[in-house]
Amino acid sequence: MALLFQSDLDRPATWVPALRKALPDHDIRVWPDLGDPAEIDYVLAWKPPAGFLASLPNLKAVLSIGAGIDHLTRDPDLPRHLPLVRMVEPGLTAGMTEFVVMQTLFHHRRMLDYRDQQARKLWEEKPPVAPWQRRVGVMGLGELGADAATHLAHLRFDVAGWSRTRRALEGVRCFAGAAELSAFLARTDILICLLPLTEATESLLNAELFAQLPEGASVINVGRGEHLVEADLLAALESGRLDSATLDVFRSEPLPADSPFWSHPRVVVTPHIASMTIPETAAVAVAKAIATLEAGGTPPGLVDLGRGY
Amino acid sequence: MALLFQSDLDRPATWVPALRKALPDHDIRVWPDLGDPAEIDYVLAWKPPAGFLASLPNLKAVLSIGAGIDHLTRDPDLPRHLPLVRMVEPGLTAGMTEFVVMQTLFHHRRMLDYRDQQARKLWEEKPPVAPWQRRVGVMGLGELGADAATHLAHLRFDVAGWSRTRRALEGVRCFAGAAELSAFLARTDILICLLPLTEATESLLNAELFAQLPEGASVINVGRGEHLVEADLLAALESGRLDSATLDVFRSEPLPADSPFWSHPRVVVTPHIASMTIPETAAVAVAKAIATLEAGGTPPGLVDLGRGY
Repeated sequence: MALLFQSDLDRPATWVPALRKALPDHDIRVWPDLGDPAEIDYVLAWKPPAGFLASLPNLKAVLSIGAGIDHLTRDPDLPRHLPLVRMVEPGLTAGMTEFVVMQTLFHHRRMLDYRDQQARKLWEEKPPVAPWQRRVGVMGLGELGADAATHLAHLRFDVAGWSRTRRALEGVRCFAGAAELSAFLARTDILICLLPLTEATESLLNAELFAQLPEGASVINVGRGEHLVEADLLAALESGRLDSATLDVFRSEPLPADSPFWSHPRVVVTPHIASMTIPETAAVAVAKAIATLEAGGTPPGLVDLGRGY
Repeated sequence: MALLFQSDLDRPATWVPALRKALPDHDIRVWPDLGDPAEIDYVLAWKPPAGFLASLPNLKAVLSIGAGIDHLTRDPDLPRHLPLVRMVEPGLTAGMTEFVVMQTLFHHRRMLDYRDQQARKLWEEKPPVAPWQRRVGVMGLGELGADAATHLAHLRFDVAGWSRTRRALEGVRCFAGAAELSAFLARTDILICLLPLTEATESLLNAELFAQLPEGASVINVGRGEHLVEADLLAALESGRLDSATLDVFRSEPLPADSPFWSHPRVVVTPHIASMTIPETAAVAVAKAIATLEAGGTPPGLVDLGRGY
């Protein structure tokens, strides 16, 4: 059986040995040298060109290199009858939780202010706020959001989560659906977006939503750039409705040089690195997903194209 | 009974109501208006002038506003026969763990580099390192160090701890004593100092110690400024032995304007805010400690002046 590693972004030098080790009986091929397209059984994909997946006549399933699958569903010719599996692997989950916890603490502890004070050689303490007095809200409680939310609760924050359908998470107050969004926002000082990108969530982080947050809230977007209306965020920072933001994803990536976010004093910009799939652990997850599919089972991360994630 | 709140740094406006609530039967007095010194039973103290505590003839115990007691033991006239209690309260512990976790993640995720990239409008990812591949080492496993270490382990770091006498902590590899210091240092990529300041620990963070860390390690000092030989840290950063540091405490505070740390590109400077005692929760801890002492018991944080903490 042949698996094609397809990515222009990820390094085959680290991925291929990991895949060969986890899938010793598979023929691992590297894009664009796929050989005979009829021999490809599986594609481990990141942003394939539109129509490419449809050109593989014997493809059995598509596996995403990342947690998101919007880079696949945007292809109008995606073979929608095939199983589509998003990446669920411990390295990706751990990395996202790290980044979310770090940035939540960064805004909670007013590190932009302390950074500014360091630049001005100013020694001045801000009044402390206990973590149980800080209301953190996580939008999206899938594999990544649930792990981040429970770790934030473990750090003693007052944590709530919001998702399409109701989840149950220890130490996290769970809100669900459009009807409960306002109540969730009204109690959220630090908002984290970890939603999947779907028609329902695109541009959800907009002026109307920001107006429902408490004055001086912070926003951390680690979902997709398309979740955010960038001009609305800038206006909310300008008016003081929002205090600060961390943005790891953007509508246009790499972020264009003329974006006002680069030099905004209240915005932390990172180059889509909140979490990265780690080849060693991901290859093991890919091997397990393929074995599960071959056995007729349902692997973790199997996408429901009806709901869009 | 009278308790004197003695601090030039902490605000009586928030402390006194919290103390009155937690100790309704006590007469809460505020320095320097102590009234008749013979009436003072307890002092909740922060950096009292030398000789002041010895001037209170009926003092029963001294309680520190902070976790450290070096601000008390430096007084040659400290009444050493009286119980001395360091602050152990959930707000202080939570705050320190927050800061340690945040700064560990900050260096682990190379945020100084990403901050620099943002300033240069540069979009470039660094290779990811899984948390279980990052070796974090906590020096000092008391109330604060133990809580920080276990939370770091919960975030999936490879965590070790080092203390004078051996501790047992879930998920943390525990080293002890001078004999095991080198082995602890050799496996520590991110070193956190949460030691008490004693004769044995003063200037412990020096060139000899840095030379035993892996090349490119980071150091986080949240103990006391006197733990660190500042010139040795600067030299280690210069040579590349150390990659970066976070310093919250200094030999001279406020940090003098001419300190090279303020503008060092690889050093995060904060104004001794890693953790601050929170009056509401601390007052409850003080009330419990006093009740325990009155009943002849041993309160949490009772100092052993023989060992110095």
